[in-house]
Order: sequence, then structure tokens, then C-alpha cells
Amino acid sequence: MTAHRIYTAALIVIGDEILSGRTQDKNIAQIATWLNVQGIRLAEVRVVADVQESIVEAVNILRARNDYLFTTGGIGPTHDDITVDAVSAALGVDVVHHPKAVAVLEKYYADKGGVNEGRLRMARVPDGADLIENRMSGAPGIQIENMFIMAGVPHITAGMLDALTGKLKGGAPLLSATVGCWIPESEVASLLRKTEKAYETCQIGSYPFFREGKVGANFVVRSTSQDDMEACLIALIKGLNDDGYETFPDGI
Amino acid sequence: MTAHRIYTAALIVIGDEILSGRTQDKNIAQIATWLNVQGIRLAEVRVVADVQESIVEAVNILRARNDYLFTTGGIGPTHDDITVDAVSAALGVDVVHHPKAVAVLEKYYADKGGVNEGRLRMARVPDGADLIENRMSGAPGIQIENMFIMAGVPHITAGMLDALTGKLKGGAPLLSATVGCWIPESEVASLLRKTEKAYETCQIGSYPFFREGKVGANFVVRSTSQDDMEACLIALIKGLNDDGYETFPDGI
Repeated sequence: MTAHRIYTAALIVIGDEILSGRTQDKNIAQIATWLNVQGIRLAEVRVVADVQESIVEAVNILRARNDYLFTTGGIGPTHDDITVDAVSAALGVDVVHHPKAVAVLEKYYADKGGVNEGRLRMARVPDGADLIENRMSGAPGIQIENMFIMAGVPHITAGMLDALTGKLKGGAPLLSATVGCWIPESEVASLLRKTEKAYETCQIGSYPFFREGKVGANFVVRSTSQDDMEACLIALIKGLNDDGYETFPDGI
Repeated sequence: MTAHRIYTAALIVIGDEILSGRTQDKNIAQIATWLNVQGIRLAEVRVVADVQESIVEAVNILRARNDYLFTTGGIGPTHDDITVDAVSAALGVDVVHHPKAVAVLEKYYADKGGVNEGRLRMARVPDGADLIENRMSGAPGIQIENMFIMAGVPHITAGMLDALTGKLKGGAPLLSATVGCWIPESEVASLLRKTEKAYETCQIGSYPFFREGKVGANFVVRSTSQDDMEACLIALIKGLNDDGYETFPDGI
């Protein structure tokens, strides 16, 4: 077994629309999945309101205790978009217009009525920041120190993540393998605990569901080692089969 | 204008399955929406891993600065379900088996093989807790002090919320009204800011989208006063119409 440094990231989802229940967040799952492939683990997420002091508090705690910090939301053109101001305040730097972002926006809006005060807001960055390419619409994302400031609209975020793919230093990707079983998870709680203990580089998650009027569960083995993960999975399947349960590879 | 006390709640979503991206969270939006109807505002959310110290930290900060704290996840029968242990540690109380929860589980599992060690885990509560009825499956939710410990599976959470409906003290519900417009939000940023400033009891949120190949936005006016909300909405619609934009009541 090789010891790997584990790289972690945190995510701050910024926006009253998530906290009001109006909008179903999709960025947590999207960014988590993308991070896994980069060998980075999403360690914690906070959803905060469009309130500067709330954002500043979350930024300063989370950027200090993780390798990377992502934010989504609040970088649009309107008055409720205050992410850049809040991040700048957290870092103690000025807000400036990034010349390249201004140029990108002028080009993007050339045949759409030109830039105006609202649109130029989207060129504002914390002093010292770099841009993250936005392949979907005009306004770029922002990188400063270990922070990545992304859009709130999920498909724009997806484009920004794509622009960052392979560029962040990470560790071994977290691998996972799933086995499903038509069984109440409560019947195999001790088998799960025992199996996890026997494979110390692996974690087993248990995810019950109710479907087609029946109770089932998917068991997910996670490890950074392919060999360990497979050995643990095989032991778990054997345990389930020995107890008389049929198992379904790749889950139900 | 009547001044209302604003009641707030926080939510802790507990579970590696959300942070790994495996499961799309649905409880944030579900609980946010339910809280609005109770006159309680969801002020902040944290998603934390199945790690006791992470849960304890979030519990102690969030329960102190909000009227209510909800948790979802980690109350099942398996080894990765540690919410009760973590909450008990945060409160400095023992974990005990709640006699009524034991009775509920014994009845629920009577024709399903009876209770076992894993199933009895679901009767464990922080000492001094009350139960929240689970109308969907056996294991109840838990209330202690200002905390509500709920299931992670969304439809079970929904049943527990239903059992709590009308029982929490709240303020005036936050009302909202929406107007939609086929317009880039960046064209009306200053109108939005001006209108919000003129109606100080109201907030205006701007939610852009791309649909049918066109750019649009929904503008949501929020207030605890029906009259103020309507006046603000009418002013916003007038402003959009005066600028030559067609508006769509209730959003696009």
C-alpha cells in the first residue's frame, strides 16, 4: 500500500435562490464528480446567502483548511451579485476591472447592444486575479490564490470546470465500485462493519432505497487503491452471497 | 409596515454520498420550501462528511446562531450512520435507547425478521430527546432542544416534515412573486437596483436562463408584506414595460 497525500477542496454555493428552495442546486454534485477525477476530494460545502459577511466568513475558514476553494454563484451583472466584492474583502485586496475580461465582454456584447454598467460589473475581479475561460457565455470565471470563482448557472459552471481540467494538482483519484442487493440494509449492518474493518484503505457506504415496492440497498466501496477496492468488493459480495442474498454488480 | 421578528434555521446535510457526487441532494430545496411556509427562513446550509468532529463543529456553531437546526442523513442502521453519536457529543449528553423508538422498531420489524443489532441502532437518541414520527418506514426522527434530526432519504424526510408542520414557532412567511422577461439580465441591472432601493422591505432576485436558444431572466420579489411585495412587483413590471420589454406574470 502506497501512502498518498489527500488533496481536498471546499465549495461555497452562494445565493438566496438555493436557500429559498426556488432553485435546485446542481453544482454540488457536478463539482464533486469533477473533483474526483482530478484526484481531489470535496471535503465540505456551505450554502450561504447573498450577504457579504456570510461569504467572507466562509471564504476565510474554508480556503485556509483546504487545498482549494470553489465558489458558485453571484458573479452576474445585477445588484445581488456580490461574490467578487466579498472575496476581495476576505482577501483584503481591491476590486479592479480586469483588462482582458473587459475586452472579452466588449467583444461578446458587440452585437448585443454593447457593454453597459451592469455588464462591466462582470469584468470586476479581486486585484491580482487570473481569469477562467467561459466557453458558454461572455463573463469569465476568476482564479486567485487557491480559489476558483465560478458561475451559478450549472452549464456555464460545467464549461469553466472543463477549462480547468487537468490543471489542478491532485492525488490519486478516489475510485469506487458498487454492488446492489434487494435487502434492507439493517440486515447486513454487521457484515458491512466487519468488512470495512478488514480493509483499512477502503470505506463502505450503504445507500438504501425503496423501488418497485421493494427495499434494497447499494453498497459503495471507495479507495484510492484499485487492488484494495476490488478485494474489499469481492469480500463483501462473498459475505452477502454466503448469507443467501443475490447481488447485482454495478448496483441496482 | 409592521416589524416582524425573523426566525431562522440552519441545515446540516450529513453524508459522504453527497460530497462524492454519487447522490444529488434534494433535501436542501425540500426543507427550504417547507420552512418558508412555517415562516422560518433557511439561513445557511453545510454539507459535511461522515466524520464526527466535522458534524460536532457544524452542530455547535449553527444551533447557537439560529432558532432551529435541522440535520439530514446518518440515522440509519449501518456503521456509517453516526449522526446520533455526533449530536450527543456536541450536546455533551449520553446516547441512550429511546423506549418508544424500540417499541416502534419491534412492531415495524415484527414480520420482517425482528430487530437485530443494526436495527436497534435506529432507536438510539441523545439522552433527553423526543421522537419525530416517521410515517414512511420504521425508524423515527429525533428532536432535542432546538434540533431536528431527520432521515437522508428525501421521501422519508418529507414524511417527518409533514409530522412537524405547524408545530414550530415562526414569523410571517416570506412571500414571493415572479415576473419573467426574455431579456439578458445585464440590460436591466440598474432598473433592478433602483427598484429594490425604492421598496426597502423587499428583495429582488435575478435568475437568468438560456432556453429555446434565447436569453431570459426571472425576477423574484420577496417580502413578508403582501402589499409591499405587490407594489414592488408592479413598479418593476412598469419599469420593464417602459423600457420596451414584454413581461410574463409568474415567470417564464
